[in-house]
Amino acid sequence: MPDTQTLAARHARLDEVRAAAGVEVLVLSNPVSLRYLTNHAGSAGLLVAGPGGLSLIVDFRYRESLRQLQAGPCACPALTVVDVPTTYEAALLECLARLGVQRAGIEAGHVTVSRLATWERLAGEQGRGLVFTPLERVVERLRLVKDAVEQASLREAAARLTGVTQALFDGVVRSGRTERAVATDLERLMREAGYERLAFDTIVASGPNGALPHYRAGDRVLARGDLVVLDFGGVLDGYCCDLTRTVAIGTPGSQARDLHAAVLEAQRAAVDAVRPGLAASDVDAAARRVLERHGLGEAFGHGTGHGLGLDVHEEPAVSPRRGAVSPAELTTGMVFTVEPGAYLPGFGGVRIEDDVLVTPGGCEVLTHVPRELLTFD
Amino acid sequence: MPDTQTLAARHARLDEVRAAAGVEVLVLSNPVSLRYLTNHAGSAGLLVAGPGGLSLIVDFRYRESLRQLQAGPCACPALTVVDVPTTYEAALLECLARLGVQRAGIEAGHVTVSRLATWERLAGEQGRGLVFTPLERVVERLRLVKDAVEQASLREAAARLTGVTQALFDGVVRSGRTERAVATDLERLMREAGYERLAFDTIVASGPNGALPHYRAGDRVLARGDLVVLDFGGVLDGYCCDLTRTVAIGTPGSQARDLHAAVLEAQRAAVDAVRPGLAASDVDAAARRVLERHGLGEAFGHGTGHGLGLDVHEEPAVSPRRGAVSPAELTTGMVFTVEPGAYLPGFGGVRIEDDVLVTPGGCEVLTHVPRELLTFD
Repeated sequence: MPDTQTLAARHARLDEVRAAAGVEVLVLSNPVSLRYLTNHAGSAGLLVAGPGGLSLIVDFRYRESLRQLQAGPCACPALTVVDVPTTYEAALLECLARLGVQRAGIEAGHVTVSRLATWERLAGEQGRGLVFTPLERVVERLRLVKDAVEQASLREAAARLTGVTQALFDGVVRSGRTERAVATDLERLMREAGYERLAFDTIVASGPNGALPHYRAGDRVLARGDLVVLDFGGVLDGYCCDLTRTVAIGTPGSQARDLHAAVLEAQRAAVDAVRPGLAASDVDAAARRVLERHGLGEAFGHGTGHGLGLDVHEEPAVSPRRGAVSPAELTTGMVFTVEPGAYLPGFGGVRIEDDVLVTPGGCEVLTHVPRELLTFD
Repeated sequence: MPDTQTLAARHARLDEVRAAAGVEVLVLSNPVSLRYLTNHAGSAGLLVAGPGGLSLIVDFRYRESLRQLQAGPCACPALTVVDVPTTYEAALLECLARLGVQRAGIEAGHVTVSRLATWERLAGEQGRGLVFTPLERVVERLRLVKDAVEQASLREAAARLTGVTQALFDGVVRSGRTERAVATDLERLMREAGYERLAFDTIVASGPNGALPHYRAGDRVLARGDLVVLDFGGVLDGYCCDLTRTVAIGTPGSQARDLHAAVLEAQRAAVDAVRPGLAASDVDAAARRVLERHGLGEAFGHGTGHGLGLDVHEEPAVSPRRGAVSPAELTTGMVFTVEPGAYLPGFGGVRIEDDVLVTPGGCEVLTHVPRELLTFD
């Protein structure tokens, strides 16, 4: 968990964003923003951040855990905890009135149209001329480049997948077992490795189910001749890891081997391409070129990767360059997945995924698991 | 899963909401709304619903699973699947132009300020005079009362907790084990019972940790003298269940016994109060009155319950009557939790939770697990 000094550094960067936006305070509502800035890890809360300090509005449920947090080495500096006597919305407006705020920036990518309407109605009732200004990527722009504490968490979260995968391959994945049974064992292994929760629903997609990129795990029994896509991840100290391997049950046929080899070549090309200064879309292009050369361009219908951090899907998007969306330029300290795939309806699919950290010389692969096509009986 | 006829009935009710709002179509973006209306269970998608039928905008990942869904008995009627060549936002605006729509209602409680701004900018570029109207509770008002298919799913999801809890009490919960080990076993039992995923992060809060209502599971070892709060739930065919029991390790002291007895009395009073026509806040008041009588009013800082359905927290809120918020009136077919608690910092906590379905004569308790204080060595 980031210590007080790390939080103070984040606050200083946030205050530059606030000042540049020309608002007196930022009202932050995304729970991930709150965790990043205060270490408060609840599902509810509002944070009012200004040059004079932070007010964290939280309800009864978090009072005791916040008291403990604030008594330790990871206490949030300059924090005032504000109670919620009735509703969060009323508590926010009271807090803004107490601070005398007239211009408040909000997280436009998180606040709903409905919630903003409520805030504006309550502000109108106050009659103080309070205005809410929607701002884009207020905290996301800070979170895009991971600081040292975050890099350590992400490295550790990814490293623990090695032992999980070894145990998974050591008897869990085998013919005759259902996808669901494999997923159950996998999730137990994740828990035993110390992850506080799963980063997303575990995918165990065997045979034709592998052609459904969003499939989870069902009653299908693993059988000889199957390719099996295993996609799983955990959360450690708030930070996510995400790994996919595709394995074969019994001796794979030539179509399965060729499909796996093509995706692996694409994945290696994309990982090798990563370096500071490159556009994220160029990493996508590196994978896509290989799959197109193998006649699998149509079979690869999703982006090559996504950022990893407190969210399992965050910036940067590693996707094709699309019209008006300007591609993110990679910089040292970004962390994202590289996960091309190919999906053939009726036959199955292959996806291979690692997590990488952009370094001055290219990238550090955070996940350490063999990528070759492994076979199990 | 609801069949075609059930979906058609939901569409008819939705179209009444649309017509009353004076819009030509509804643009639905909440994935839960999409699942409720189409059986499409993806994390992405946009649904354009008008009197002439539904257009479901989904990307590559869902093409194959939708094809399979639409070939079966649970196909969504009057559905056109629309591809996403570049972005969801562009695909939506193209779809609305193709349909000639000028007035579209949106889910104000789900669409972010940022997303609406993008839609409005793209609409301005079209120059057709397209206007988006924010609407509240468009689909939520339909989901509030569960139809027969939903009641069956909720009943089955809750019923399976009986076996899980028996196995949990049969050796999993005992002194010397960590909270995390208990949570791991509990989650395996949930998987084995057939739940497709957990409804929320499992809580195993022992001793003083029980006083933190949002605590999950950590490294603390269960010890004689502890109360242990166990709060868990699963998702079956999309529908959630949610159960809390508080147990004792070793022989409980008089404070623990009294605390449990008071919460159990409050929980029984609230369950007994449930009947159609009552305000949801009156169910909350029934529990709160008992705890206040025991001097535990301050120790009970959260609402008594929340609706259950496709979301684990949905309408109705079973909370105190608060200022301008008009309390929901209970009607037959609503499903919610009843879960009062009492939390004493430094000592621990007690929470007891069941799921109930409102019936003409009162309510049906869907969860079947003993509520008395059980003790384990």
